[in-house]
Amino acid sequence: MYQLHIEPKVSETDALGHINNTVMPVWFEAARTPLFRIFNPELDFDNWHMVVVGLALDYRRQTYYGRPAEVRGWVASIGKSSIKLAEHLYQDGELCVVNEAVYVNFDHETQRSRPISDAQREALQQHLKEDS
Amino acid sequence: MYQLHIEPKVSETDALGHINNTVMPVWFEAARTPLFRIFNPELDFDNWHMVVVGLALDYRRQTYYGRPAEVRGWVASIGKSSIKLAEHLYQDGELCVVNEAVYVNFDHETQRSRPISDAQREALQQHLKEDS
Amino acid sequence: MYQLHIEPKVSETDALGHINNTVMPVWFEAARTPLFRIFNPELDFDNWHMVVVGLALDYRRQTYYGRPAEVRGWVASIGKSSIKLAEHLYQDGELCVVNEAVYVNFDHETQRSRPISDAQREALQQHLKEDS
Amino acid sequence: MYQLHIEPKVSETDALGHINNTVMPVWFEAARTPLFRIFNPELDFDNWHMVVVGLALDYRRQTYYGRPAEVRGWVASIGKSSIKLAEHLYQDGELCVVNEAVYVNFDHETQRSRPISDAQREALQQHLKEDS
Repeated sequence: MYQLHIEPKVSETDALGHINNTVMPVWFEAARTPLFRIFNPELDFDNWHMVVVGLALDYRRQTYYGRPAEVRGWVASIGKSSIKLAEHLYQDGELCVVNEAVYVNFDHETQRSRPISDAQREALQQHLKEDS
Repeated sequence: MYQLHIEPKVSETDALGHINNTVMPVWFEAARTPLFRIFNPELDFDNWHMVVVGLALDYRRQTYYGRPAEVRGWVASIGKSSIKLAEHLYQDGELCVVNEAVYVNFDHETQRSRPISDAQREALQQHLKEDS
Repeated sequence: MYQLHIEPKVSETDALGHINNTVMPVWFEAARTPLFRIFNPELDFDNWHMVVVGLALDYRRQTYYGRPAEVRGWVASIGKSSIKLAEHLYQDGELCVVNEAVYVNFDHETQRSRPISDAQREALQQHLKEDS
Repeated sequence: MYQLHIEPKVSETDALGHINNTVMPVWFEAARTPLFRIFNPELDFDNWHMVVVGLALDYRRQTYYGRPAEVRGWVASIGKSSIKLAEHLYQDGELCVVNEAVYVNFDHETQRSRPISDAQREALQQHLKEDS
């Protein structure tokens, strides 16, 4: 599991009094740094390979300023050159947003996807959701 | 169809040289003002009813700073109290991102969804995608 | 002193490879929650009094993704109904951005500023920069 | 004068019901594309030279969603290798925010500022505020 503790910001609220829905993709992406390091240990942008191809957000509860929130994420499945992520946003012990993200291991030079290596696969498996 | 012309901003790029993926929900939401007006002609936040419950983004091409982009959106279907939207982001004549959004007509006082009125339904139908 | 630990996000970088300059006001505002609580312990938006009237940002060094950063802020001076804040952004032990912010204690009902109370003044003084 | 028409977004409001103060640096930066082109006609990030070194924002009135706004900017002065910009944000015919920005013509290879050329100076002078 990868996790990110979040302190919501005033600038992330909107005039309806909650955190605006466009902020959740920002929080989920921020939580993925441990995954980005698997493909790019130095987090060097000239050597970046993880490219998002899909997001599916399911908003279940409003989220608020003034109380901590938390992203919890898992690798849901590992394909030949892509991975699927399952991500939850919690606040006050309640599940507020569920996200599913798909990333491709992309080679910017050839402009094509490239296979996930065995070492990468092993590191990703540390983030698989355990059955229990 | 609802439309929004967009001039991408430097602050919307990321270090990979493209518009960051978290910007697209912002652009799509910005294009929905004509729909928000159907449920709330004065765009008054004390009388707001459209609440997002789902987004599904399919990223097909990178988007760039320095060239105009455009959102084109349609009402895909109208339920009893919810609507489904189909949205496209174009740049340089190419389809870059496809989004599907679901909104509920929500009553903040009762904290429950409420039926879409006939007048609202008629206004929404102006944005239906024509078969052709 | 008020402080905020920051993990820069990919979405906060821009295509020049650094954190975009428009992000710093976001980080500095986020660090002010302890001050906001002095005027509004419940952080209730219906009872909000701190309104920004000025920011002056001095950008000295680039800031980067992949390394923690930190805001350190102080109350620089306390007037009859306004306060001046001095804020620093550090990364890798280097001072990257200096900010000066001015806030007014504002009463939204009367639409006028209102005096800072003795209790508020005392709480603000805990954040004064010590001479040394 | 450089200008930018703005349609404020829901995501740019905050829970106090106005456009959040951190949005104004984003709008002002977006309006500077004509200046960026003077130093970099192709807006190519590998050949970017305009680096912000200071912003000074003076917030005079609240700004709102649902009504157009406009940035109007001028080159206030042109130094050997830097320029000072004066920028105004208007909404409903009222001056809402005044900004002063300082940019340096920077050479990323040598990591030093470099002189503004005669051709650049002439182009910048088209944006000088006329006395009248």
